[in-house]
Amino acid sequence: MQGTASDQGYQEVPGGICAVPGFKAAGVYAGLRKRPGSVDVALVDAGEVVTAAGVFTQNIFCAAPVTVDREHIADGHARAIIVNSAIANAATGEPGLANARKTAQAVAAGLGCEPADVLVCSTGVIGVQLDMDKLLGAVPDAIEALSEEGGAAAARAIMTTDTVSKECAFTYGFGGRTYTIGGMCKGSGMIMPDMATMIAVLTTDAPVAPKAAYVALKRAADISFNKVTVDSDTSTNDTCLLLSKGTGEQFDEGSEAFEAFCAALGHVCECLARMIAADGEGATKLVTVTVTGAASDEDADLCARAIANSPLVKCAVAGHDANWGRIAGAAGRSGATFRQEDVDIDIVGIPVMRKGLPVPFDEDAARAGFEPAEVELAIDLGAGECSTRMWTCDFTHGYISINADYRS
Amino acid sequence: MQGTASDQGYQEVPGGICAVPGFKAAGVYAGLRKRPGSVDVALVDAGEVVTAAGVFTQNIFCAAPVTVDREHIADGHARAIIVNSAIANAATGEPGLANARKTAQAVAAGLGCEPADVLVCSTGVIGVQLDMDKLLGAVPDAIEALSEEGGAAAARAIMTTDTVSKECAFTYGFGGRTYTIGGMCKGSGMIMPDMATMIAVLTTDAPVAPKAAYVALKRAADISFNKVTVDSDTSTNDTCLLLSKGTGEQFDEGSEAFEAFCAALGHVCECLARMIAADGEGATKLVTVTVTGAASDEDADLCARAIANSPLVKCAVAGHDANWGRIAGAAGRSGATFRQEDVDIDIVGIPVMRKGLPVPFDEDAARAGFEPAEVELAIDLGAGECSTRMWTCDFTHGYISINADYRS
Repeated sequence: MQGTASDQGYQEVPGGICAVPGFKAAGVYAGLRKRPGSVDVALVDAGEVVTAAGVFTQNIFCAAPVTVDREHIADGHARAIIVNSAIANAATGEPGLANARKTAQAVAAGLGCEPADVLVCSTGVIGVQLDMDKLLGAVPDAIEALSEEGGAAAARAIMTTDTVSKECAFTYGFGGRTYTIGGMCKGSGMIMPDMATMIAVLTTDAPVAPKAAYVALKRAADISFNKVTVDSDTSTNDTCLLLSKGTGEQFDEGSEAFEAFCAALGHVCECLARMIAADGEGATKLVTVTVTGAASDEDADLCARAIANSPLVKCAVAGHDANWGRIAGAAGRSGATFRQEDVDIDIVGIPVMRKGLPVPFDEDAARAGFEPAEVELAIDLGAGECSTRMWTCDFTHGYISINADYRS
Repeated sequence: MQGTASDQGYQEVPGGICAVPGFKAAGVYAGLRKRPGSVDVALVDAGEVVTAAGVFTQNIFCAAPVTVDREHIADGHARAIIVNSAIANAATGEPGLANARKTAQAVAAGLGCEPADVLVCSTGVIGVQLDMDKLLGAVPDAIEALSEEGGAAAARAIMTTDTVSKECAFTYGFGGRTYTIGGMCKGSGMIMPDMATMIAVLTTDAPVAPKAAYVALKRAADISFNKVTVDSDTSTNDTCLLLSKGTGEQFDEGSEAFEAFCAALGHVCECLARMIAADGEGATKLVTVTVTGAASDEDADLCARAIANSPLVKCAVAGHDANWGRIAGAAGRSGATFRQEDVDIDIVGIPVMRKGLPVPFDEDAARAGFEPAEVELAIDLGAGECSTRMWTCDFTHGYISINADYRS
């Protein structure tokens, strides 16, 4: 990422969500997870009520905290975010909704703000009620533990089947000032969001107006988290939140400052989205699917999504197999409009199809091309000028092991 | 199947496609497959030019024989079908088209009919040209081997990654006469057809008019092969052909005789479709997904397809895990319209969700419920009167092994 980053003037900095001045975070152990020594509750505090925006799962089975957050964020403002892992608080009915509200109340009481200024996220097993004694008992600990160095602990506290914690932060310059955007996220299974993937928290000191913050977040999520698919499943809890505590004149939609912010936010979200794809359940490879020459943006997305979701394509990557037939097959059934005689396909940079026909290639070179942790599958439909990228991972025995034995 | 069959007056009979009087078939070894002792070319001969109908893949990367068959079947008539396995003759350009035509010419010359009355199917690896010396060399052998007992050999000759050959035949009565419908098919990976799955050949002595034969075939494929998904991928070669050599007054659309034929043809196709799902790559279970209470047929299909394609749901079945959360999650993102508080879910006959909330159930009983070779996942959306069924299989390490190492 750093190569790309510096090209565009973005500078990677440490600290995750706490890289932004004025934000504190904590990760503490409430006992929801059965692994003592781990952390399972994250708290993020902007120190005051700030601009807030959120995008949420489109799944009809949305979780209780998603319902509560939609209410709390309606005014475009919030101060703090509490996230618990282990229990998703989804398919929990009225008691689940009441628990999400109680959690917000407890955090608000501790920080001295309104419950409506606290956002609540949960991730983990569906259909189980939260142990509120444990969760509420951890709220004072979390408030006590808030610090400017707490970003990493918070990122660890929101992990479920993730094998690594996921955070990043970048600075960018505009109008003689330097702004920071930090982020953390979690997610590795049940992932193909309709809009915002799993749980992501973004912080910034860029002064974005509330409505503009939502537009920027939606735009960034659409080109990052919404272009990730691990297994074509959308979670019940997908939530992406942005807190902006910037000072000075607010960036409004349409301004150059707003566009610069959108680009930088998109960059941070892409960085996090790639981390999710790379940490897909059982994944050994981050796979970038690039579609060019599509007749429309919709066609580009259909084609990229069909390839990125194809179990056959993903198994071929796991097997280091430059199997262009499976890519062609997925593209052909995707619903995108094109003619087979116009199609070019490159796998790990090697031309394997030109004008719809296979071209001879060195199988050993192709196999070697699959060695890096990151590989590219590229298809040019020869049908227009539209393009997109999508991120996924390979499909391995690890995915089956994780998901055939998750609850038991 | 026999229980259901006799309920509806259908009687299962042996012989597959040759159960229908007047049809001969053969399966011979051309050497396209590397396993000597196996068979790789099937020939089906109606003995004369008869009514023929076909439905084909919607994949843009359609194979050469699909293009040729669309031409040859345009007049609603054919006499013979030749199928080779091992090589798909897809992504083979003009030479591939020429080879498909040469194959039809060779069969026509041997049988004494027009090339346009011969249908050609290929299944196997994409992007490789057929070894025409071997294929054409086997045509006289196949013609020589044609017999009324040849159905089973033909069904074996069309197998690729299938672990069992797939054929069935049923009789049904109408208007004081007994008619027979026989069928064979192949397919276990790259399967989620848009209309006709993989390769299926159906024969009958019911006298169906050409246009009515197409309507009946399309209708039967839509409720059988088109409701099967192994891995959400549609092949480049999907082809479903029907030959009818019935005598007497032809059944036309709208007649009772036509409706009885449609029902019987649907029954045979469902029987074959279930065999495909049960033999999905790496499958240990046939899974029937039943959706009821949908607001529309489209919603029922969306919901059933989302559940049947969900790798998480399929892994849960492999793990004998009554994981209703994954079913709810898939339904919720399917695009079907409903409210979560109206949803009931039953897994292997055990109620696990009522009105959107989990109900306690005996985990041991549920685990035992997964023991049979066939299991049902049922969801009632509580949103209307529409329903559908879809067939899939579980997702296992076997699928990964087969597909991460297919070409190499």
